[in-house]
Amino acid sequence: MIFTVLTLFPGIFDSPLKESILKKAQEKNLISFNIVNIRDFATDAHKTCDDTPYGGGPGMIMKIEPIYNAMLNIEKNFDKPYYILLTPQGKIFSQKDARRLSKKTHLCLICGRYEGIDERITNLVDEEISIGDYVLSGGEIPALVLIDTISRHIPGVLGSKDSITNESLEEPLLEYPQYTRPEVFMDMTVPKVLLSGNHEEIRKWRRKESIKKTIMRRPDLMESFNPTREDQFFIKEIMEELTE
Amino acid sequence: MIFTVLTLFPGIFDSPLKESILKKAQEKNLISFNIVNIRDFATDAHKTCDDTPYGGGPGMIMKIEPIYNAMLNIEKNFDKPYYILLTPQGKIFSQKDARRLSKKTHLCLICGRYEGIDERITNLVDEEISIGDYVLSGGEIPALVLIDTISRHIPGVLGSKDSITNESLEEPLLEYPQYTRPEVFMDMTVPKVLLSGNHEEIRKWRRKESIKKTIMRRPDLMESFNPTREDQFFIKEIMEELTE
Repeated sequence: MIFTVLTLFPGIFDSPLKESILKKAQEKNLISFNIVNIRDFATDAHKTCDDTPYGGGPGMIMKIEPIYNAMLNIEKNFDKPYYILLTPQGKIFSQKDARRLSKKTHLCLICGRYEGIDERITNLVDEEISIGDYVLSGGEIPALVLIDTISRHIPGVLGSKDSITNESLEEPLLEYPQYTRPEVFMDMTVPKVLLSGNHEEIRKWRRKESIKKTIMRRPDLMESFNPTREDQFFIKEIMEELTE
Repeated sequence: MIFTVLTLFPGIFDSPLKESILKKAQEKNLISFNIVNIRDFATDAHKTCDDTPYGGGPGMIMKIEPIYNAMLNIEKNFDKPYYILLTPQGKIFSQKDARRLSKKTHLCLICGRYEGIDERITNLVDEEISIGDYVLSGGEIPALVLIDTISRHIPGVLGSKDSITNESLEEPLLEYPQYTRPEVFMDMTVPKVLLSGNHEEIRKWRRKESIKKTIMRRPDLMESFNPTREDQFFIKEIMEELTE
């Protein structure tokens, strides 16, 4: 998978792509990055990439031409990538999108800044994505979110140490609580069942805790949860415990 | 505002904090960063920060002791910060949280990795936050999301160029489309009203487009929208246009 990023702040990407899982994935040639400075594709002597909005108002709007020129240049060197615009106006990103987009061979992430990009950009992209209902300074950190989340779905990127199985949100359930040594820390103990060695009891405890946490913290996720017969039994138990 | 970050990958933060708005805010002494490597607070010779989960299963769990030691060390040097754990199990972050948290003087963001942190950490933090329903390799990129989003609410951080007024999501409406030069790009023209110089007509057009975009793309946001009498008129017009 190639990730091309179009940005006015390529420097932001220097360090985050050089650490941990993304670093290893590049070493294994599973992913590669092509960080493009939009400013290199401005056409005037001053390398202008933004201008005031038509109709007035505060702030600056990113011009469409330098971005379009950068896109043309990419298509000279690669097959046409799948273009994603990071914008607060996009569809809210989810784990399902990460899995879907991990099947593409080349994603081009376009990062807006200031008051956004000239609206006509929306006709040149395949998809508009928002990472959540909060306002960032630009699309660069959202691009990092997509890069990390999508990369994890590419076969070979995760070692067994960071296995994608059992991860939160592959099912719409939060993860069960996890504990490691020491057994007692500041009077806080590890649940006894986890020390029992009884695999079946541990499996059941974890499943029930996972459902319980989701009910308590993210009841909205339960709407898309398909409980098994055993899960239904746990839900009944949890409800009884909660109303006691 | 001080942002302390507890992480196993401090290198991730090298470049993103040195660019654009965050760079300027540090130069103006409005924010400062204290990036702490949790590994420096491990107690054994091997600097162990993770261990296998009690009860078995894949992956490694971050130990609570090194994090606790790092917290004690922060409290030796500063007043007790407000502790935030970045975790998929947290409350989904929103613009309201950004505004609320920007009032704190010192935030400590704790970044999990691998299969997460020993559950007992939840008893040591003030709040658990998730940036969205997708799985990342760790809390580092979410920490960047919080840092950027929260910083923008600190008085003086945004210049007039990047004014926080009129931004998406301060009201639950998406922003109206913005355009800048050229007037015609690849046969795509700027809406005529924006070239009219009629400020009242421009204001009305923008308000209506903003409501229209929200209805079309994020109908869920309309639930928390309090329309004025004029807005109600626009909603009626939009509905008529959409059903034509």
